Amino acid sequence: MEKKLYDYSVDESFELYLLIKSADIRVAKNGKKFIAFTFQDTSGQMDGKFWDASEDEIASLTPGKIVNISGKRELYQGNPQIKLFKIRITKAGEPTSPELFIERAPLKKEDMMEELNETLFEITNANMNRIVRYLLNHYQKDFFQYPAAKRFHHAFVGGLAFHTISMLRIGKTIANQYEEINKPLLYSGIILHDLGKVIELSGPISTEYTLEGNLLGHIVIVDELITKACLSLKIDDKSEDVLLLKHMVLSHHGKLDYGSPVRPKLRESEILFMIDNLDATVTMLNSSLSRTEPGEFTERIFGLDNRIFYKPLSQDNEKNIED
Amino acid sequence: MEKKLYDYSVDESFELYLLIKSADIRVAKNGKKFIAFTFQDTSGQMDGKFWDASEDEIASLTPGKIVNISGKRELYQGNPQIKLFKIRITKAGEPTSPELFIERAPLKKEDMMEELNETLFEITNANMNRIVRYLLNHYQKDFFQYPAAKRFHHAFVGGLAFHTISMLRIGKTIANQYEEINKPLLYSGIILHDLGKVIELSGPISTEYTLEGNLLGHIVIVDELITKACLSLKIDDKSEDVLLLKHMVLSHHGKLDYGSPVRPKLRESEILFMIDNLDATVTMLNSSLSRTEPGEFTERIFGLDNRIFYKPLSQDNEKNIED
Amino acid sequence: MEKKLYDYSVDESFELYLLIKSADIRVAKNGKKFIAFTFQDTSGQMDGKFWDASEDEIASLTPGKIVNISGKRELYQGNPQIKLFKIRITKAGEPTSPELFIERAPLKKEDMMEELNETLFEITNANMNRIVRYLLNHYQKDFFQYPAAKRFHHAFVGGLAFHTISMLRIGKTIANQYEEINKPLLYSGIILHDLGKVIELSGPISTEYTLEGNLLGHIVIVDELITKACLSLKIDDKSEDVLLLKHMVLSHHGKLDYGSPVRPKLRESEILFMIDNLDATVTMLNSSLSRTEPGEFTERIFGLDNRIFYKPLSQDNEKNIED
Amino acid sequence: MEKKLYDYSVDESFELYLLIKSADIRVAKNGKKFIAFTFQDTSGQMDGKFWDASEDEIASLTPGKIVNISGKRELYQGNPQIKLFKIRITKAGEPTSPELFIERAPLKKEDMMEELNETLFEITNANMNRIVRYLLNHYQKDFFQYPAAKRFHHAFVGGLAFHTISMLRIGKTIANQYEEINKPLLYSGIILHDLGKVIELSGPISTEYTLEGNLLGHIVIVDELITKACLSLKIDDKSEDVLLLKHMVLSHHGKLDYGSPVRPKLRESEILFMIDNLDATVTMLNSSLSRTEPGEFTERIFGLDNRIFYKPLSQDNEKNIED
Amino acid sequence: MEKKLYDYSVDESFELYLLIKSADIRVAKNGKKFIAFTFQDTSGQMDGKFWDASEDEIASLTPGKIVNISGKRELYQGNPQIKLFKIRITKAGEPTSPELFIERAPLKKEDMMEELNETLFEITNANMNRIVRYLLNHYQKDFFQYPAAKRFHHAFVGGLAFHTISMLRIGKTIANQYEEINKPLLYSGIILHDLGKVIELSGPISTEYTLEGNLLGHIVIVDELITKACLSLKIDDKSEDVLLLKHMVLSHHGKLDYGSPVRPKLRESEILFMIDNLDATVTMLNSSLSRTEPGEFTERIFGLDNRIFYKPLSQDNEKNIED
Amino acid sequence: MEKKLYDYSVDESFELYLLIKSADIRVAKNGKKFIAFTFQDTSGQMDGKFWDASEDEIASLTPGKIVNISGKRELYQGNPQIKLFKIRITKAGEPTSPELFIERAPLKKEDMMEELNETLFEITNANMNRIVRYLLNHYQKDFFQYPAAKRFHHAFVGGLAFHTISMLRIGKTIANQYEEINKPLLYSGIILHDLGKVIELSGPISTEYTLEGNLLGHIVIVDELITKACLSLKIDDKSEDVLLLKHMVLSHHGKLDYGSPVRPKLRESEILFMIDNLDATVTMLNSSLSRTEPGEFTERIFGLDNRIFYKPLSQDNEKNIED
Repeated sequence: MEKKLYDYSVDESFELYLLIKSADIRVAKNGKKFIAFTFQDTSGQMDGKFWDASEDEIASLTPGKIVNISGKRELYQGNPQIKLFKIRITKAGEPTSPELFIERAPLKKEDMMEELNETLFEITNANMNRIVRYLLNHYQKDFFQYPAAKRFHHAFVGGLAFHTISMLRIGKTIANQYEEINKPLLYSGIILHDLGKVIELSGPISTEYTLEGNLLGHIVIVDELITKACLSLKIDDKSEDVLLLKHMVLSHHGKLDYGSPVRPKLRESEILFMIDNLDATVTMLNSSLSRTEPGEFTERIFGLDNRIFYKPLSQDNEKNIED
Repeated sequence: MEKKLYDYSVDESFELYLLIKSADIRVAKNGKKFIAFTFQDTSGQMDGKFWDASEDEIASLTPGKIVNISGKRELYQGNPQIKLFKIRITKAGEPTSPELFIERAPLKKEDMMEELNETLFEITNANMNRIVRYLLNHYQKDFFQYPAAKRFHHAFVGGLAFHTISMLRIGKTIANQYEEINKPLLYSGIILHDLGKVIELSGPISTEYTLEGNLLGHIVIVDELITKACLSLKIDDKSEDVLLLKHMVLSHHGKLDYGSPVRPKLRESEILFMIDNLDATVTMLNSSLSRTEPGEFTERIFGLDNRIFYKPLSQDNEKNIED
Repeated sequence: MEKKLYDYSVDESFELYLLIKSADIRVAKNGKKFIAFTFQDTSGQMDGKFWDASEDEIASLTPGKIVNISGKRELYQGNPQIKLFKIRITKAGEPTSPELFIERAPLKKEDMMEELNETLFEITNANMNRIVRYLLNHYQKDFFQYPAAKRFHHAFVGGLAFHTISMLRIGKTIANQYEEINKPLLYSGIILHDLGKVIELSGPISTEYTLEGNLLGHIVIVDELITKACLSLKIDDKSEDVLLLKHMVLSHHGKLDYGSPVRPKLRESEILFMIDNLDATVTMLNSSLSRTEPGEFTERIFGLDNRIFYKPLSQDNEKNIED
Repeated sequence: MEKKLYDYSVDESFELYLLIKSADIRVAKNGKKFIAFTFQDTSGQMDGKFWDASEDEIASLTPGKIVNISGKRELYQGNPQIKLFKIRITKAGEPTSPELFIERAPLKKEDMMEELNETLFEITNANMNRIVRYLLNHYQKDFFQYPAAKRFHHAFVGGLAFHTISMLRIGKTIANQYEEINKPLLYSGIILHDLGKVIELSGPISTEYTLEGNLLGHIVIVDELITKACLSLKIDDKSEDVLLLKHMVLSHHGKLDYGSPVRPKLRESEILFMIDNLDATVTMLNSSLSRTEPGEFTERIFGLDNRIFYKPLSQDNEKNIED
Repeated sequence: MEKKLYDYSVDESFELYLLIKSADIRVAKNGKKFIAFTFQDTSGQMDGKFWDASEDEIASLTPGKIVNISGKRELYQGNPQIKLFKIRITKAGEPTSPELFIERAPLKKEDMMEELNETLFEITNANMNRIVRYLLNHYQKDFFQYPAAKRFHHAFVGGLAFHTISMLRIGKTIANQYEEINKPLLYSGIILHDLGKVIELSGPISTEYTLEGNLLGHIVIVDELITKACLSLKIDDKSEDVLLLKHMVLSHHGKLDYGSPVRPKLRESEILFMIDNLDATVTMLNSSLSRTEPGEFTERIFGLDNRIFYKPLSQDNEKNIED
Repeated sequence: MEKKLYDYSVDESFELYLLIKSADIRVAKNGKKFIAFTFQDTSGQMDGKFWDASEDEIASLTPGKIVNISGKRELYQGNPQIKLFKIRITKAGEPTSPELFIERAPLKKEDMMEELNETLFEITNANMNRIVRYLLNHYQKDFFQYPAAKRFHHAFVGGLAFHTISMLRIGKTIANQYEEINKPLLYSGIILHDLGKVIELSGPISTEYTLEGNLLGHIVIVDELITKACLSLKIDDKSEDVLLLKHMVLSHHGKLDYGSPVRPKLRESEILFMIDNLDATVTMLNSSLSRTEPGEFTERIFGLDNRIFYKPLSQDNEKNIED
């Protein structure tokens, strides 16, 4: 298999096609302009600075472009970095589709759709089932393309759907273990909890917060979506079913301090909060540990209180391929 | 003028008509039942225990009834209390309307309506004006009857409207002093900010949280009302006007910890938060100080971090009638 | 089936055998002594006061005794309570074994042992396997009898083992879902994490903290047990395996503030903390909700920030038998 | 009108007279010295770096000097910055007075004095009136020149008096709305609350904390000033009037955590705290928003928990001149 | 030696002269009045309730009176309590002086004065020496009579002076160990740090907060005393010596949250804070432990975060007389 | 006496032998490598950058080497720094032993040993005496060489022993002042409290956290050492003596948040916590103030909440040699 960006070691030279993810124009201390790039392929992202950039280069080397790069992997203040030897726009016959360079969910969209559809049969409450189907239908395309966050975890194409699927799997085993759990409520809550991201964020790639995202936030946005769905579907939005479902979404951040306007007041909403937290945490840990050598500590993980984690020398898990 | 409940001093006896606000049946240590009453007239509320209540008395002395009471004002663990000598249901020819015994806003409904209507002319933004008029119209009756809170401040009939009017007055002087302020936005936000209370609470008297109030909270409820109003009025709910107005409501508790899902991101929403806080604080302070003797401290005020406040001996304000 | 204590409704009379769980001698306001009892059968615990107790009754009605009681279920300040009509010590031919009245884990000891033993085969790391087997062997009897806590959750006979089994089940589904997880480490950590309770607490019934529990705490106690096990088994306690296992135990409270001397620095210890929290939370919620009527809120749950939870009218889960 | 520094857009060149507000000598990574300037005119302050400065230039280009600058406005890491082409000291016939380049209160000193004097007539309590007059008299010059803070808000010449006047205006409308308020006490408290700044800070321009400011703080300094004023005026400093006034000053930061040695224990001191907070907040918001484009967010505002605020595209306020 | 109140065990009867420390008139659930007493002799304080008190008894059994009591020591909800059999005012020939019943400092006033005077010779800074002498002289009588606190620690006659002496002893050993410490500054700070208590509190016995204490607090009161002392002594109160001394007092609570308007900014003020904390803590611990049986835990200690402390069975200290 | 590094003033040139404490290879903005050094002699540590380093120089100028340096002391962003003119490895006949350049405890090892041995005679509890002797014996060499911390305080050769001796001195004066204190327990706790540092840290020079230090922490490590010592010495580790001693060590950080798994529950462990804090604080303050000019403030001290402290112009202490 072709070597990717992160397959090269420090001090190793390479020539690669990479996608420009971002390109900031800055002024160096000597007064000349340079470009602070972030490059990307499916193995991950890496920064690189391009000194003494001409106005032409600044105009053409923009985010979304594919470039051919000769360079060397280096270490700069503890972080991987590309030292650029040569950079040029691709020519005819070379790769041009950004899609090829972007990390995506480890499951195929079709498989995720099927898994989701099977779950819908377990949502035996009529109101909940109709609302969930209506909204999934309405936002289907974006749901399978958007990331689950701007940074931190599942920040890749399809991340939102993958995060949802992953939570459903945990949710099902927990619901089977503790039989008192209301399955239709829990599964509906999991499916809808982050759907507001498709409005809070600007799109699947290089995503930013929209004005709506900034002023309302994805939690309230889902509540509005359910309100509108009830009007369209002629469901009484004061029925207990609907109030329970809205509460699942509104309280899923678990604490007021984390942005929920109400704390969980249902067994199922407390569980939803914990499952969300569990999947996000394990995903962040796996991602950081996969970039760490055995016997070393990870970099500080922002989403986990800036803590560092140790990767043991001995790996007793079945899949010993993280590094 | 006829003497009211709070016009009597400690150890003074009285015979009065009072409204039963609440009546809890409890079991005394000797195994017999007693009723823990809260009585009320327009001067305030006071507790009183009725020992060795018969099953008949328990069945008839219920909340909402008017009773004739012979008793004495006492002090019990620092709080005023009625020692009951005799209690009986009113007979023909005696007062029967609970309305006569309930504290209400110091402004008449008609005056509050007029003041509110005048403000509507200053809401020169078309979308905001239509939404505010639509919702006021829709909830007019409850808006002028509901309290602004279950306890703490403005917990009386008409309290919601009075709190709103009071905030509008402060809002106007501030908006005139700092001319950069967007008046239509600030005034719309003030009028709508607590409107959800008419759904969060169960009614104007002996109010409790509804299921909707418990699971969604009044902040999100207003957001839903605006969403629906836009649908009815065919206003684009993604227009900046609507997003700004929703944000005013969503952020008016100022901090996540106080139950807002987003912190204020507009000058006007930060100001709305401060005006709300100011009116609530002064109202709680005035209420506690009016029940305190000069030279003494108030009881601990729950809504103000359980602090106590001093009422000076010398009162240099124009209105020296608090005691 | 015979009716148990909690099968009776408020105001219903009964005659039952109950175990005295605790009996506090207090002085009433009239200067006479009374006994504040907590009674218990397998349906739960309930308080009851016995007025004007004689010195003989005080001497004989002590914790651990079985008594025959005529009484009535009442409600006292929102909590269930027994109004005592008659109480007497059991006679010959009546039940005498406290064991019959005590709540116990819903799984049989033999089944839990088998499930645990099967897990041991999945601990493929030799050092961890030997340490876990050694300690389980050593403390086997207490491990299957002790509760998992003095109050709050799993505070019943066999609670410690049941909590451990329950966590293992969740742990296995999570380890199967995220294949990077080191299974031997996670399972060893789950099995040993609370083992120190058998030394921190005084016994399976009416348990109190021991001096060792007070001064060292169960977290450090397990660390010492592993240290001694290594000496006995001649395992190098500076090997990475042992340090990882000790760290699992030491960090399993997740935060310094919750009593762990180090925060989790391993993926598996972060997960252990979350699984522990999840099982404890669901167990507390199920317990409180099982004593709550549909359409009502639970009492405040101490272990969950004193929050209250709602039990919906509509129960869409498969097991509709909670009430 | 002549163009000022902030009237130029990014990348626009200019030649301007500017005041040097500060000039730090630093060593570049190449070992040569450079000067990190902050320049200023009445439109605001902007940084600029002067590379390879000679010892002569370092000696002459010092804070307080007026310079003639050819340069270009740039953006450096999101902040405006001057790229210097040429810098020289002013010659004969060119502006030399720093006063001309300094931002000042939007009200004239005479107008502020008159407004203050009118307020004194409303301080009808004899002791308070005499103390306030005595101290205002004593510190009159500095009171109208000092800023209200080193940074954050009202950090300009005359800022202290302007902040005080602004608070008095709000205070008066609030005192008129809630008639129980003790006006003499509230107004005296507003006038004196920050007077200690004239001793805590070193002067009206380029102000720093004095040793007295560092070791005592402006809150305690005012308390001492009142103590001394009482001695001079032969007022009993144990009279209730004086204690109330001192308490207003001591508690005006509202919380212990914000540096008040006592929390407010008077209605008027709680209100003083809220008015102070309101004026400071609105002033900071207006200042940041005036430098923000419609449709954009402000930079992070340090004095407001580092939050960012949105400036709407539609400006419905009467004064649409902020940008 | 005569047996004192605390020399009697639970359930032991006694007849004793005791001082009435406080006497609250309350109404029992049966509507009759009773007196809730706190009695006191030099061994400590104990509560006792007097049921069905007549109006005559209420009028005569007031705080400050000496009474003869027949009663029995009991345990009420974990606290010691007197069950009253008989209570009467003392007759001619019986003890009448409250002084005889009050706990006092373990050192004689003369010895404390001498120890303090010796320390004054070590305050070699002229300004500090004059200020300390002036204030000690001025408040000498109260300084040796007042307690150091209303509750918690050193709450006895002479407690203020004893706490000061105790801190001076620790201060001297620390100043000798770390020779960089400025002794005159540290010793002056220790002597003056709590002097404001003589104004904050109402007197040596049954002390309450004065209005001055409530509105200003003892920390600011000392600052005012130093300000006035400088005026009397014609010492420049802007000299560094005076600012340092004032800062010692102002910052001695160590944190803003604990009521200091400034945090320590001198080595000596940081040390003053730690010594104050050390002496208060050890004094509270000794007091609680002296009332605890070996092998038991103390009651919760309010001044130490409500923690409980263990009193070991084995006492290896030289003085084994605590119990 | 020969001039040391910190004896030179800013802008003064020098030629000195210095030890390379650390040497980070970094890439400058121009793409070339440079070495960021920290140099050290017994007067302290100072940074210096070496530009355009060749690969040979990078290979030879490594930590632990002694170098001869021509340079100049400068000030860089408020911190002292060396501007390097020339740097070379020492030749034959020049100093080569790192020992000569390292700061060490101000007491000689022999004197510390003697002082410690004398203290052992005061540990009259047999179990404690044996455990302390056993562990001191076992770790004697490291105990007198290791620092007490990686940074902050006593971060020098012999720092651990010196910090211990210093605490013992304070502990003895306090134990003599409050005679209830259990001396054997307090002294044993002081001696052992930080002994785990010899395992938590990697060595006396350029120390780092070991894996054991990271995963267990020095507090738990000492607990394990005591556990093993008991096994070797055949002391019952469930005896009260041992539990008390372990508790001293486990609780000596005073709060859960500071890393203790239990809060102090003994008078002596609360005191141990305060003494530890006192010695660390005074040591940090003395160190920072010794590098500060009179009339100036220190740099921010990380270990003291990033506060700054003032060094007065007038120094009234006996030892006026800090600057």
